[in-house]
Amino acid sequence: MLDEQTAGAIANDFQTPVFVYDEARIIQTAQELLSFPHHYGLTVRFAMKANPNKNILRLLHNQGIHIDASSSYEAVRALDAGIPWQNILLTAQEMAHNLEELIQAGVQFNACSLHQLEQYGQSYPNSKISIRLNPWLGSWESNRVNVWWPSSAFGIWHKHIDQVHTICKKYNLTIVRVHSHIGCGTNPDVRENVAFINIQTLQHFPDATTLNLWWGFKVWRMSHEKTADIHTIWQRIADKIKDFEQKTGRKIHVEIEPWTYTMANNWILLCHIQDITSTGSEGYSFVKLNTGMTEITRPCMYGSQHPIVFFPQNQTQQNSRQQSQEYLVAWHCCESWDMLTTMPWDPEWLRPRSFPTLSVWDICAIWWAGAYCASMSLKHYNSFPEAPEVLIRTDGTITIIRKRQELKDIWENECDVT
Amino acid sequence: MLDEQTAGAIANDFQTPVFVYDEARIIQTAQELLSFPHHYGLTVRFAMKANPNKNILRLLHNQGIHIDASSSYEAVRALDAGIPWQNILLTAQEMAHNLEELIQAGVQFNACSLHQLEQYGQSYPNSKISIRLNPWLGSWESNRVNVWWPSSAFGIWHKHIDQVHTICKKYNLTIVRVHSHIGCGTNPDVRENVAFINIQTLQHFPDATTLNLWWGFKVWRMSHEKTADIHTIWQRIADKIKDFEQKTGRKIHVEIEPWTYTMANNWILLCHIQDITSTGSEGYSFVKLNTGMTEITRPCMYGSQHPIVFFPQNQTQQNSRQQSQEYLVAWHCCESWDMLTTMPWDPEWLRPRSFPTLSVWDICAIWWAGAYCASMSLKHYNSFPEAPEVLIRTDGTITIIRKRQELKDIWENECDVT
Repeated sequence: MLDEQTAGAIANDFQTPVFVYDEARIIQTAQELLSFPHHYGLTVRFAMKANPNKNILRLLHNQGIHIDASSSYEAVRALDAGIPWQNILLTAQEMAHNLEELIQAGVQFNACSLHQLEQYGQSYPNSKISIRLNPWLGSWESNRVNVWWPSSAFGIWHKHIDQVHTICKKYNLTIVRVHSHIGCGTNPDVRENVAFINIQTLQHFPDATTLNLWWGFKVWRMSHEKTADIHTIWQRIADKIKDFEQKTGRKIHVEIEPWTYTMANNWILLCHIQDITSTGSEGYSFVKLNTGMTEITRPCMYGSQHPIVFFPQNQTQQNSRQQSQEYLVAWHCCESWDMLTTMPWDPEWLRPRSFPTLSVWDICAIWWAGAYCASMSLKHYNSFPEAPEVLIRTDGTITIIRKRQELKDIWENECDVT
Repeated sequence: MLDEQTAGAIANDFQTPVFVYDEARIIQTAQELLSFPHHYGLTVRFAMKANPNKNILRLLHNQGIHIDASSSYEAVRALDAGIPWQNILLTAQEMAHNLEELIQAGVQFNACSLHQLEQYGQSYPNSKISIRLNPWLGSWESNRVNVWWPSSAFGIWHKHIDQVHTICKKYNLTIVRVHSHIGCGTNPDVRENVAFINIQTLQHFPDATTLNLWWGFKVWRMSHEKTADIHTIWQRIADKIKDFEQKTGRKIHVEIEPWTYTMANNWILLCHIQDITSTGSEGYSFVKLNTGMTEITRPCMYGSQHPIVFFPQNQTQQNSRQQSQEYLVAWHCCESWDMLTTMPWDPEWLRPRSFPTLSVWDICAIWWAGAYCASMSLKHYNSFPEAPEVLIRTDGTITIIRKRQELKDIWENECDVT
């Protein structure tokens, strides 16, 4: 855990808001993922949309983790970061704007729709290809994180395999990888069922040698949340793969892409209280932070929860920290829903939390901000510049990996016309 | 309305996605706002967070519209755009990081909390000041756009006026402007009540000469939505101000800040269909666009609705446009809720819309994208570069006012560490 002295030193050295990542934790998570049981090979991929800073990509890659890019722009970004082409897979909702450049560089292409498969076939007949399927089975935690119902636009619908074969025949494409995305979740039984269905699907693709299970293993952020029991899940999947080999003689290499799990808990956003207000006895007390949806959008978008820890800045206050009070935690944008303490998974509502008595300029740590925070935020809203990112190295030094944005860079592409 | 030829020409010249604004419409809206009935002076302000492109700010300012900045960074941006200091008011959730610089430049400061008032008083005793109050009355269209309930962190709670006076006395501050923010809405009766309450509040501030009514007049985006009947509302408010003068002898200057109204309908986001997929007979058809929450976040954040118009790109298809089909409109991010057709004001759900038969590469116009779109988006998520903005001039020429971002600019602040 972060101690008060370190929090103060980082806030002082880098100013707030600042994202802080922890190299030792990142390495530990990477090693844990790479040690999953497997019989015929395992590749772990990081969906870089979760945190595309090139230092994070390299750190994970140095451990042996490969990359999944969610757009052709991300694939370019990964190449620019120095990730070898053979370790990048492109799995995108939007067809690559630069397919030829990426294929020439050696990036692997994963067709996410029949149209993408057709386009790829036209350009690269007689080649090997990967497809993404929607198996119509997965976890269900909220409508908004649904990626496998018929209302999800992701992947090729499982009943359209005949059309896949027609296109493959037309262009002499060989399907060597089958990929499926079924959301985050903790239930091993659901995982086992989905793995079973995906393995069955391999029977339709006799040349497939790789099964990519694009699952975000659920990680706990709040104490009441459960982290997926990955080893139970994974042992069951490995067993299924072995059964498949015994029945068919096919040794399937497995790929996993636990995007949230890889980075979410590796680490925090550090900020300050910049105001404390109240709407009186019939209302609420508000702690206002010097950050907001400009850095973390998840609570107002999805009702996602993050632990919030305050560090008092004076002794008197430290002595009175046994008292507690309920606060709504508000953010700095002039936007009605720029609130951190939304209701869990129901962002239409707010829920106060109890904290010790707080003061303006207390440091605040918003926990588990390593994934989908710096990368998925309402950048520049109200013209706030991008917050910097720092990395705590394994030797304890703290180094900046992304500088705070200069204000004028926000509008540098505007032209003088009117 | 946009014709097919113009849509095609803009898409061809500037590529998509591209924001398109219309100078003639902007001027017309500005003139309409400036012609509101008033007895003792009127200032119209534009809350620049809605669209901070310097060309838009100048265009509005050239018509006579002043600026409201929602952060000290926005105030700097307005100054950099050439807006004169005396026409900028700072109304921010977060205290200015550069108060001295802004006050020296002449920017007006609006204290939005007791703490801000205290800080201002410490730095600038014996001066004139503006305050923002929460009157506890306003419109109610969704929890998420609530800015006046006790659960809103905006402004000084109306029951804390005694504390305002205490701070003012301590620093010899004179309150010359009272400001209130009560959301968007169409109901003239609510407006009249709120105006009445705000005018009553002036009795507590005998030196106040200006009342700022920070209201977003509701504009229709969909055919079933109502635009506020502004003239009815405004005539009633002007009458109230006159009544107040007759009772007290005080001639109150009025300020309005109709942020959405000023720009929302002035104009569109142009994009392309990049894929069409389906989840079969038990599911949905999807149109996938080459844009997303990277340009417009409102539908997935608030369930906001935008009209969507497609322009077919071939003759055969044009002939078959009398047929129609239901589609969900999906966007380009690898994010489960990157959908345009969410349920109105209930973004937890989706609602398909009927369109003529569509094809990949049809041009698509997302209507009423002039406010809270380019400025309030999940920039760089999935590493998509910022879309450009163009302006249709009154003489019909189309000129770029913000260039498409270079991909590498997204990560230019990252350092090489790992």
